[in-house]
Amino acid sequence: MLLSGGLDSSTVLAMAQDEGWECHALSFSYGQRHSVELDAARRVAAAAGVTDHVIAEIDLRIFGGSALTADIDVPKHEDVDELGEEIPITYVPARNTVFLAYAVAYAEVLEADAIWLGVNALDYSGYPDCRPEYVEAFERMANLATKRAVEGRPLSLRTPLIDITKAETVRRGLALGVDYSLTRSCYDPDSHGAACGHCDSCLLRLRAFEENGRADPAPYRPSATPA
Amino acid sequence: MLLSGGLDSSTVLAMAQDEGWECHALSFSYGQRHSVELDAARRVAAAAGVTDHVIAEIDLRIFGGSALTADIDVPKHEDVDELGEEIPITYVPARNTVFLAYAVAYAEVLEADAIWLGVNALDYSGYPDCRPEYVEAFERMANLATKRAVEGRPLSLRTPLIDITKAETVRRGLALGVDYSLTRSCYDPDSHGAACGHCDSCLLRLRAFEENGRADPAPYRPSATPA
Repeated sequence: MLLSGGLDSSTVLAMAQDEGWECHALSFSYGQRHSVELDAARRVAAAAGVTDHVIAEIDLRIFGGSALTADIDVPKHEDVDELGEEIPITYVPARNTVFLAYAVAYAEVLEADAIWLGVNALDYSGYPDCRPEYVEAFERMANLATKRAVEGRPLSLRTPLIDITKAETVRRGLALGVDYSLTRSCYDPDSHGAACGHCDSCLLRLRAFEENGRADPAPYRPSATPA
Repeated sequence: MLLSGGLDSSTVLAMAQDEGWECHALSFSYGQRHSVELDAARRVAAAAGVTDHVIAEIDLRIFGGSALTADIDVPKHEDVDELGEEIPITYVPARNTVFLAYAVAYAEVLEADAIWLGVNALDYSGYPDCRPEYVEAFERMANLATKRAVEGRPLSLRTPLIDITKAETVRRGLALGVDYSLTRSCYDPDSHGAACGHCDSCLLRLRAFEENGRADPAPYRPSATPA
């Protein structure tokens, strides 16, 4: 289970456990400017009672160039409708490919049958490595890569959110009892973990709760009155 | 260019430069028990005059279980004919997948057109992630993963050694002037970088030089009289 501590992966964890899977969580410390994501991942993993939670330290900053890992301002908007179709500045090169490669290694050591991840192709903010065709190609590659696959025991990638809206994700998570107050999604939180309310990720999250007629229980900064 | 400092990747670097490519090198510090490989990679990169050489620190030990990264004895043999067909204990889970994922990230930042790597399917010692079908599947996945690919500029994986013998690799490298005294291949070198002469990697390398009627110019330990 790739667990970021955000809304999507926390929901996927609940979905996998609801299906009866024994889950192991994998998170990444990848040169973020903040540890808010990892704190959230730890809280979510602990609350869900996962078997273990490995945090892999990786440093994608050695290659340069993205708002999530370098010192570039995160883009802010007043309204969710301002989000464009273009690939955003917050794009991290090959991020899901690197994360999934580690997951394949971990899965092989665990003899796990599946990797679960919370990618979504609708609210995907223009990341190419969130599309179904990418996930299918990665799965195919992974099943040629490992000793386990050579021995005839394939690994599946499970992406239950890939074709549903974020509002539907929240609806399903609430039905499964996910405590979204533990999760964090903001690209630019303050040092206490409070969300900005205006980055792409905040705007998509706020809209999803609004469409469920619910307030987002995660903390926002006073200046972050939802648009 | 994935550059390990071994015989294969050092030869591939020379082949790419011979074709006129401007090369950037990527090596990994991945919890090895020794830094001999990285020292060799640095020497080879410097001798070849690569544009830059990035060393990524990764730690696959967090997932456990291989002789190359954990504290397990490296298997030794008296003769190359003793090498089995089974996947060896020196297998590192998903190693090439993790390495190539980083290479995709680096290639995207560089706007590189290709990733070159020295995998070989004949002398591959049973690693599933050295086979042509794996490389093709990875390339296909990578071209669905990145902003660059979405924008119609594909990335190719170049594996010029994939179907040639190690003896042929050495023959071509010698013709291109590769200084194999700079390279290291041993799975169990001493602290001075001298090779054991009896691990799978040493046995395959020694045979390749022998088939070219040449002595391997890399250093071996006094006890490492070739079988």
